[in-house]
Amino acid sequence: MNTTLHLYNTLSRQKEKFEPLRPPFVGLYVCGPTLYNEPHIGNLRTFISFDMIYRYLKYMGYQVKYVRNITDAGHITNSLGEDVDNIGIAARLEQMQPLEIVYKYNLKFQLLTKTFNLLPPNIEPTASAHIQEQIEIIEKIIENGFGYSVNGSVYFDVKKYMEKFPYGILSGRNVDELEAETRALQGQEEKKFFADFGLWKRFDPNDMQIWRSPWGKGNPGWHIECTAMSTKYLGKTFDIHGGGMDLKAVHHENEIAQNCGALGINPAKYWLHSNMLNLNGKKMSKSLGNFFMPFELIDGTSPLFSKPYEPSVIRFFMMMGHYRSELDISDEALQSAEKGYLRLVQSFRNISKITPKTPNETLWNQLLQIEADCKKAMDDDFNTSVCIAQLFELAGLINKSLHHEIEASDREIEKMQQIVTDYFETVLGIDYQDKNTIRFDLDSIMQMIIDIRKRARENKDYQTSDQIRDALTKAGIELKDSKEGTSYEII
Amino acid sequence: MNTTLHLYNTLSRQKEKFEPLRPPFVGLYVCGPTLYNEPHIGNLRTFISFDMIYRYLKYMGYQVKYVRNITDAGHITNSLGEDVDNIGIAARLEQMQPLEIVYKYNLKFQLLTKTFNLLPPNIEPTASAHIQEQIEIIEKIIENGFGYSVNGSVYFDVKKYMEKFPYGILSGRNVDELEAETRALQGQEEKKFFADFGLWKRFDPNDMQIWRSPWGKGNPGWHIECTAMSTKYLGKTFDIHGGGMDLKAVHHENEIAQNCGALGINPAKYWLHSNMLNLNGKKMSKSLGNFFMPFELIDGTSPLFSKPYEPSVIRFFMMMGHYRSELDISDEALQSAEKGYLRLVQSFRNISKITPKTPNETLWNQLLQIEADCKKAMDDDFNTSVCIAQLFELAGLINKSLHHEIEASDREIEKMQQIVTDYFETVLGIDYQDKNTIRFDLDSIMQMIIDIRKRARENKDYQTSDQIRDALTKAGIELKDSKEGTSYEII
Repeated sequence: MNTTLHLYNTLSRQKEKFEPLRPPFVGLYVCGPTLYNEPHIGNLRTFISFDMIYRYLKYMGYQVKYVRNITDAGHITNSLGEDVDNIGIAARLEQMQPLEIVYKYNLKFQLLTKTFNLLPPNIEPTASAHIQEQIEIIEKIIENGFGYSVNGSVYFDVKKYMEKFPYGILSGRNVDELEAETRALQGQEEKKFFADFGLWKRFDPNDMQIWRSPWGKGNPGWHIECTAMSTKYLGKTFDIHGGGMDLKAVHHENEIAQNCGALGINPAKYWLHSNMLNLNGKKMSKSLGNFFMPFELIDGTSPLFSKPYEPSVIRFFMMMGHYRSELDISDEALQSAEKGYLRLVQSFRNISKITPKTPNETLWNQLLQIEADCKKAMDDDFNTSVCIAQLFELAGLINKSLHHEIEASDREIEKMQQIVTDYFETVLGIDYQDKNTIRFDLDSIMQMIIDIRKRARENKDYQTSDQIRDALTKAGIELKDSKEGTSYEII
Repeated sequence: MNTTLHLYNTLSRQKEKFEPLRPPFVGLYVCGPTLYNEPHIGNLRTFISFDMIYRYLKYMGYQVKYVRNITDAGHITNSLGEDVDNIGIAARLEQMQPLEIVYKYNLKFQLLTKTFNLLPPNIEPTASAHIQEQIEIIEKIIENGFGYSVNGSVYFDVKKYMEKFPYGILSGRNVDELEAETRALQGQEEKKFFADFGLWKRFDPNDMQIWRSPWGKGNPGWHIECTAMSTKYLGKTFDIHGGGMDLKAVHHENEIAQNCGALGINPAKYWLHSNMLNLNGKKMSKSLGNFFMPFELIDGTSPLFSKPYEPSVIRFFMMMGHYRSELDISDEALQSAEKGYLRLVQSFRNISKITPKTPNETLWNQLLQIEADCKKAMDDDFNTSVCIAQLFELAGLINKSLHHEIEASDREIEKMQQIVTDYFETVLGIDYQDKNTIRFDLDSIMQMIIDIRKRARENKDYQTSDQIRDALTKAGIELKDSKEGTSYEII
């Protein structure tokens, strides 16, 4: 077991040595999508980042239990603190039941995760299947004196909570600072304190999903599902809680308060946040028009990009940045990533073509150094950027060996392949063997072969024409001669 | 809108004209898998059959809402009437939470549905996300006098029900016949009548999923989820209810009783049942050892089969039988299906290679007849078997046109392609363009090309060697010469 991993803990605002609570097990919870529309490319970056983190933890030998939820119920609080039922709004617009909307977009989300080579988590629990667990957590919060019910809604009592626990430990902002930023909102009069947040909302005539509860019919608040589901699947305490940076200040802050309020303890030892994806240096938003869907990037239909990009190129581009840094996507950036990607992939595909010669101690030591540096980079808060730089070093050595500028024996060749498999494929999750990236035009080749065979027959060179037919048959292709000429068929 | 479809209604035991309740809309509910293990090939046949039915209804122009549930909660009654918590048992064995088990096998199930080219339904609702809807239906049944609670369990009162509604209308067996077959079971003393069945079961210390209810903590019975979810997503009445033949006598019978008991009406106008899949003439079962998983058929790892089979060949094989007939799978049957499949596919792929000539009225009329006969076959209770026979006729005409035995103009060629697209691809759901079925060995071809080029250069035939390099570059393949010889790369 590797014990050298250090990761940046949002909670302590510093890099800490990773020491799991119950090695060799690691519990990892990541806030998943709210499926009222197709996941945004920015969300995708979050999920790819945590897929890489999951992959590296597994690669290190940990037995990781990875839970990534799906939000399909409950009201979400927007940046103004307003209560929004996005799934209900989409359901009304698309004339479907809320869970039909979720199903529709989950099909797209799952396709996206496969397209970008994300490993499936151990479970993707849904809020709608865990209403009872949410109610039970709310009951505990009330029992412990940190929640109160008013007119069929239940709120978290932040003032009461602050008597026992610090509030705002993730964002580092105290309640006074929050108050200065908060706009007075309608319908908030029920709250005892401006910072109190909803645990259960009594139903509204517009609600399309309504559940029974001890406080009457209603909906769970936005934050409570994560407390309920992380506790159910990973226990009261677990190792890593992840999510996008946008969830830090409100959702995760309140999640910690709920867990402390119900169970007396912050659930996660390490809180990890992945950073935002910008487009040409600007925050993406529908209103600014600098907005595109992930599949538009792949099929080349977004007017913001000059050409389509392979999913593995897009993933590689994302891995070129560190997950905690802002990343700027642009046509130029993707083209440059693509060049680098192709350089690596060509080199990696050629490893098997290197002619083994005598052992080369210098090369061997260089390879061991590259391997150690890849590990060191990943151990340094998952620095994929530095890891990729090492892989470029490796590609250079592969190319030199291929072109006989240096010699490599089987030992060195195997090590090259192992580093590629370990870091490029397994840890960074780049599916470089993906058949989609192998594109060639069989028709052109076959036309050329048919022409050569025709000329050979005209020249009575039957050795060549027979050789062509035999090789094609062996390859699973049959030639058909007719008055109109020769055609081919894959058999 | 086509109004000529006739389908066999298990309820009336005869073929009936299909007249949807609210055209152009059609509601279709199919009982989906219970995901405590990998779906069996027999279940797969059921889902492929109803996928074909869904496809044909859509092809006819209906706006179909297709609901296929996932059972992830509740106790199932086995053939002896015993109460079995299969998901709980698997959860205990695999040391996971019940919904983790379901997630694990749902990943496999979803992969299977994609592999066999099944269209996704409009929603796959889960029992665990609809506990409240199930409780509400049970409340209605009790309210209407057809259910009673005992010690925290609720039973359906079959005797009371029979005063108002006929019981056993699907299987056609009356309660006396059932009684003669029923074994006395332990723990059934709470029931008033042997045929009463559980709507809600009070919790047992072994239960791994427990929900609150008005009758105390417990689990929903097996049948109630389908009543709750079909009503929620398709309404009190809808058009077609489908499922495997094995569900007819108990599950569907009780579902009808629940719907009548709660809402006063049989939910579905047409009840459709797909038949069983046997292996070498015998019922498949783990204990008999004549058992294999769907993916074993594809990767060739089952000792019961001599070779792997493409998913589209397996689907084609299933479509060769009528969905209401027993179908016997065997190595021989699959090999023969594969031959037929390849014959069709080769012919269909050649349509584009037919040289258009002058219009051929005879051929045109033959094609119109084939098209009409395909429709007639599908209109006759989805007779895919007869439809495929027509497609073989079509292949014969395509081959004759290709080999200049008969002439075809653009009009005829287009009609050929349209019939293939409509019936083979769209309705039968055979993905014959699937790249997985196009297999050839590029290495063999490239070695042959490299040899020819080498010989050409040795013979100073630079025209040929240049032609080869140019054609390959155009095709996206680059040759690399070195001391060791020539290698190729896809660029």
